[in-house]
Parts: sequence; C-alpha cells; structure tokens
Amino acid sequence: MAEPRTYEKRKADTIAQLEAAEADAWVATASTDGVAHMVPLSIGWTEGRIVLVTESRSITARNLGASHRARVAVGSTRDVVMIVAEMLAAYSIADAPPQLLRSFAVQSGWNPSTTSAADGYRLLELRPVQIQAWREGNEIAGRTLMTHGEWVGSQPQNS
Amino acid sequence: MAEPRTYEKRKADTIAQLEAAEADAWVATASTDGVAHMVPLSIGWTEGRIVLVTESRSITARNLGASHRARVAVGSTRDVVMIVAEMLAAYSIADAPPQLLRSFAVQSGWNPSTTSAADGYRLLELRPVQIQAWREGNEIAGRTLMTHGEWVGSQPQNS
Repeated sequence: MAEPRTYEKRKADTIAQLEAAEADAWVATASTDGVAHMVPLSIGWTEGRIVLVTESRSITARNLGASHRARVAVGSTRDVVMIVAEMLAAYSIADAPPQLLRSFAVQSGWNPSTTSAADGYRLLELRPVQIQAWREGNEIAGRTLMTHGEWVGSQPQNS
Repeated sequence: MAEPRTYEKRKADTIAQLEAAEADAWVATASTDGVAHMVPLSIGWTEGRIVLVTESRSITARNLGASHRARVAVGSTRDVVMIVAEMLAAYSIADAPPQLLRSFAVQSGWNPSTTSAADGYRLLELRPVQIQAWREGNEIAGRTLMTHGEWVGSQPQNS
C-alpha cells in the first residue's frame, strides 16, 4: 500500500482531476420522493464551480431543480474524489454566463451552443460544499478536504 | 468511433465486468426525504445477484433498508454498465447464505466473516431489474440489455 498523501498533495491531485481535459463524473441525485438517479456526465471546472450540461428534460436536471443537491464522483473507485455539491443556478445555453459556457466547452471538447438542439439543454452551475479524496484504506483518515464550502487546510484531522 | 457492439457482445462484456476479480461499483441510493448518496463498493456477482457488504450503520444500508432500491454503475464513464437493482434481503454476516458470502469473499478478496468487527456489517442481496450498457454515442441505441428483471434478447430495439 502506498504512503498516504498529504493534504496539500490530495488537494492538488483533486483540482488536477477536476480541471483535466475531458473530465467526467458520476452525478447522483434524488427525486423528492426518494428515488436515486445516477449518470456519467462531462464536467467543467472553473473558479471553484462545477459546470454540467444536461438535457432540460433529463432526470438529473429535474432532480437538481427540486433539491439543488448532487453527489458528484470524479476518478475511479480506487482513486476517489467525492463531492457534495449544491446547484447555484440553471441557465438556458443562450443565457449561460460566457465564462462558464466557454470553460465547459474547452474542457469537455463539446460546445453545446453549436448544436442544433441547444434549446433542449441546460447549463447547471454547482458549488462544492464538501470534498473528500482517498485511494486506499490508509487514506480514509484525512480524506475530508473541504467542508461547508471551505478548504479545511492542512491541520490534523480524524475524519 | 468503434462500431457499436451487438447485444450478445454487450451482454457478455457486462457479465465479465460483473464477475471480474476485485470488481467494484458506484452505488447510489436515496433517503426517503430525497437526499442522494453514492459510494464506491466492492461487489460480488453470483447466480444473477449482486452482493454488497456494508457497515450496518452506513447511509447506503439505511437507504436500502427503507427504499430497497439502488442504482449501481460498474465500469468507467466511457464504458458504462448502469443497473437499477432492488434489494431482496439484508443479512448479518453470521446468517448470510454461504453461497453469497463465499462468492463475495472470493471475488472481492475480502471475507467479512474473518474481521473482528463482522457484527458491524451487513450482506445485501440485490437483484438487477434494468441493465444498460454503452461506450460511445453510437451505443445509446440498443443500450438496454435487461428490463423488468429479464434479459431482453437480441431483437431490434430503439431505446
């Protein structure tokens, strides 16, 4: 088993995974009546925001519209970045802030505003509230990198 | 883009992923009040059942105990196996059917009955209700391999 990474290393690795070209994530949401949904989606990462683009009629868009909450996993099951995120805003593609749309398009390699069906999509802006990152069992301690929307810093921690 | 796989090839690939040594999955569940949860877990696959082992006090165990439903993703975001599963039963490790426990232990490389804290774990038996598998955009058509708990067979389909 490899040595556990430091807080600073985990934070750097996490940001690298979030801003990688063609990064994508498992996005889990729930309906108000308690049915879990999960899909893989391309992500954008800019200025501390996660950008998603989904069809307006998708279950993910509907669930986020109701709950404003998602759980977003980046990386693999053996190199986990697990994020609890809240949705700040949902935009039509035409009305999306240019910086968010551009960031998503460059990172994902897909510009939704150039598709003929752009009207059917929404750009969703999410803010991470909690971020945890771990690889092996020896990284469970110290896995919490962000709570309440703030990076925790490198002080000792147990969770 | 590679040619889309046939139904038979996708089914074979899917079963191979489910029964692979050290297979693991993203398991998404929801609380009754609509909060999504998702964690990576080792899985066992035997006789058409998905076997999970989680701490009794985990959110996943609690959510499944209430809703009996999970969404289980195996593979990567670019080689997706997406399963809707229902929980058939939850067992203490001591009372779990030997075949399920043995299958999980052999496949995952971890036998929960040998841990000192075995009392704190539950073995969960899930049955797939729907299975979809796709890699690229040209595999969205034909992605549904199982509905209502039955393999659909290789007849033409549009969804």
